Formats: sequence, C-alpha cells, structure tokens
Amino acid sequence: MKGYYANRDTLDVSSKGEVNNLLTEADVAAQRQIIAGVQAEFPDDTIVGEEEGFNVIPEAANGRCWFIDPIDGTQNFVRGLFPMFGVSIGLADDEGFLCGGVCYPGTGDLFMAERGKGATRNGKSISVAPTPAMNTARIDIDLGVQEDRRETLERFERIFIEGGQVRSHCAAVVPLCSIACGEADVYLHVGLNPWDYAAGVLLITEAGGRVTRLDGSPLSPFDGGRGVVATNGHVHDELLAILAES
Amino acid sequence: MKGYYANRDTLDVSSKGEVNNLLTEADVAAQRQIIAGVQAEFPDDTIVGEEEGFNVIPEAANGRCWFIDPIDGTQNFVRGLFPMFGVSIGLADDEGFLCGGVCYPGTGDLFMAERGKGATRNGKSISVAPTPAMNTARIDIDLGVQEDRRETLERFERIFIEGGQVRSHCAAVVPLCSIACGEADVYLHVGLNPWDYAAGVLLITEAGGRVTRLDGSPLSPFDGGRGVVATNGHVHDELLAILAES
Repeated sequence: MKGYYANRDTLDVSSKGEVNNLLTEADVAAQRQIIAGVQAEFPDDTIVGEEEGFNVIPEAANGRCWFIDPIDGTQNFVRGLFPMFGVSIGLADDEGFLCGGVCYPGTGDLFMAERGKGATRNGKSISVAPTPAMNTARIDIDLGVQEDRRETLERFERIFIEGGQVRSHCAAVVPLCSIACGEADVYLHVGLNPWDYAAGVLLITEAGGRVTRLDGSPLSPFDGGRGVVATNGHVHDELLAILAES
Repeated sequence: MKGYYANRDTLDVSSKGEVNNLLTEADVAAQRQIIAGVQAEFPDDTIVGEEEGFNVIPEAANGRCWFIDPIDGTQNFVRGLFPMFGVSIGLADDEGFLCGGVCYPGTGDLFMAERGKGATRNGKSISVAPTPAMNTARIDIDLGVQEDRRETLERFERIFIEGGQVRSHCAAVVPLCSIACGEADVYLHVGLNPWDYAAGVLLITEAGGRVTRLDGSPLSPFDGGRGVVATNGHVHDELLAILAES
C-alpha cells in the first residue's frame, strides 16, 4: 500500500460516477488480497466489500459477515493528503460487531477492537476523551458526495455554527479512529455504508463511546439505514437533542 | 517542536477567549526563538507575530516586515491530529511578499518560496494542479472560529453544495501548501490574519496559482481587509463569479 501511495501519480484511477467516488488499482488489489486471506481461513463466512461487486449487504449476519473497505478515503489517497486514508476490516455476527481493525498505511498506525475486550492503538489501550459538551467538542461533519451536501448542511446547521471545533476530512475511518483514541469527540454523516464504519463503530464503543443512527436508534450494518452519529458518549444525548430540534 | 508534540498531554494550554483559539507554551517558545533569530540578523525589520503582543499589523511594510505564526493549527497540535499544523514565516517589502516558508514539524516537510524564483517542497520545484473547474476541484473551506461560521455557511453555500471535494482542516497553512504543491485546488476563509497566509500566498503565486480577497481585489497584508480566496489559478474566475452571485 505504501508503494502504491508513493507512486500515486502513475496509478490507474477511475471514477465510480462521482468525483468523490474514485477507484484505483490499489483499492482492487488490496481488497482481493484481504478477501483471499479471509476465504482461506473462514470459507463459510459471508464477505461484503466496497469494490468489485462485493457491495451487496445481506439482511442478517447468517453466522458471520465481514465488511471490508480496502481504502477508505480514496480521494485523499489519490491527491496525497497526509495519511488520511485507511484500510478497514470489521466482522459481525448475529449479536453485533465481533472485532474490527483499521490500519493507516501512511503512518503504520493500527487500531484494533474486540467485543468486550476493549480497543487498542498499536497495542496500547485507548479510550475516548472526556469532552463534556458540544460547544467545546471537536467535531467532524462529513461533506462527502455532492448529492448528500444540501441535506448535510440543513440537518447539521446548528452543529456547524455552534459546535466547538468543526472539521471535515472525508474519510470515515479517520474521525472514527480519532474519537476512539480521544483525538476527536464527534462524527456525523447523513449516509455511509457498513464497510465505512464496521470497524470504527466497535473501536468507539469498546473505547467507551457511543454510535447510533441520527434519530438515536441502534445502528446495525444489516438494518438498511442511513446516517451515523458517533461520539465520545458524553455529548451524545445533547447532540441527539439538537438534531431532533433541527 | 516534535518534542512538544510528543508530550502534548503535559503542555500548558490556555484559551485566548474561544475554544478554537488556543495558546500553548510551544507557540510562545517557538515564536520567541524565531523572533530572536530575525532580530539578530535583521535588527531594523518590523516583526509581526500571532503571540505575545506582536499581533499589531502596520499600514505598510516600511522597509521590510516579517509575519510569524509559530504554530498554525494549534488545536490540531493539541488534540494530536496527524501533522496538520505548521510553522509559517513570511517576509514582505513595499512591493509585496518577498519570501516565505512553511514547515510541518510532524512530517519534516519544508515549503519555501522567493519572489520571482518559484516554490519548492523539500528542495524540489512544485506547481499547482491543472484542475479546470469548481465541480471537480478539491476545496478547503475553513470552518475556523465560531463567530465566523454563519457567514462562512452563507457566503460559501453554493461551493459547499456544488464543489468537487470539500474539506475543512482548520489550519490555513495546510490547504495553502496543498494548493501550491497540487494536492488541493481551492481554499476559502471569510477572515484570516496576515501571519496565517503570508508564507502561503507567495508559495501559491510562485507555484502558478492565484490569491485575492473574496471580491477579487488584490490582497495585501497591510490592507486591513478580511477574506481570502486562494486557488490553482484555473478555477479562480469561476469561483469569483459564484461568490459575486451569492
């Protein structure tokens, strides 16, 4: 992956219909490698991935289901924005997320979580930050694809204006991991696919945070729903109340 | 600086009146060191800096005037967000910006520019990207301090919705250097102080891009104006037309 990044100027890049939705040969190669590894070890598991037709989401885990995003933040990868892209792999069973991991190839950082056993960054235990209120929170509002932008501005207008520090990095794994390790407090997206958040959700909940849909209902990768609110837990109720009033 | 960053949990951090406006002992120490270096070599030059009362901007260069931001992106520095903060030093004379440099302590990247002599990153010549239109451009809209947010959302609403890729990193040096080296195409801010952009403006113009006020008028650090539009040059007129209609 670092080799692809170093030579990103020569990569074969195609658009999946929208300027923010890019596909590179690195995405394809990484997903094939990950899937081959999973299939060799766990041939009966279901596999969902962002690329090459693996993006069909079942209605239930049916045993165990893997969610793979070979590069989350492909546009950052292509344009060379720091290490703001990551490889995300999450595993769910019928009880929810079982384990998940995110790697930033640019820095070598590795975030891991297992249900009931906490979350780690490079082997060291991590936890969310104690930030108590939205007006001092560090917030990432995802301004992803163009078709979601008007809804994003409207639904999160009060957060944009009143929130403590507002950022937009447009790679879901970055704010999700940042919340898990206490470098950020809130992440908001009006859409998002399970492969974008499967690992991040478990990282956050195992680090003491909270993740729901925008109306506060539980989030499952199999529920067909849209919208993600991820927080350090402490500001979650305040944030949901603001969203409910908006 | 890397030492301060590694030990950021133990830093003395104070707020300059707003959650986004932080001051650490690292800002103070870095500015003192830079000013001491400038004064030793150029005792007659004027010095403007973000911290410790050096933030008074003269109405003209009066010979030569330095603009120093010891850490641009202090909140990113404090919360540990990748290398998204930088040291910025720019020098202006009566004809405009004469030279400027930005260093990212987190990565060791060094961007330098001299009037009429081009811009470099780590010694290699850099230039802006050829991106021709706003709907495919990579855009950074700065969601800095809370008091500017409503104006930011209103003035740049069409850019938020129709722009190609929209980001907000909240450290001016990051998007400015990104435009200079072709990793981004546009940066917008409704305010901004001369020490935030003094180095970045010359980096961009020497790399082939363009920087103006929001109404398209020339930008000078001595003009007392607000608002910055920095682009790769190719999308500048289209962007100004959108802003004029908004």
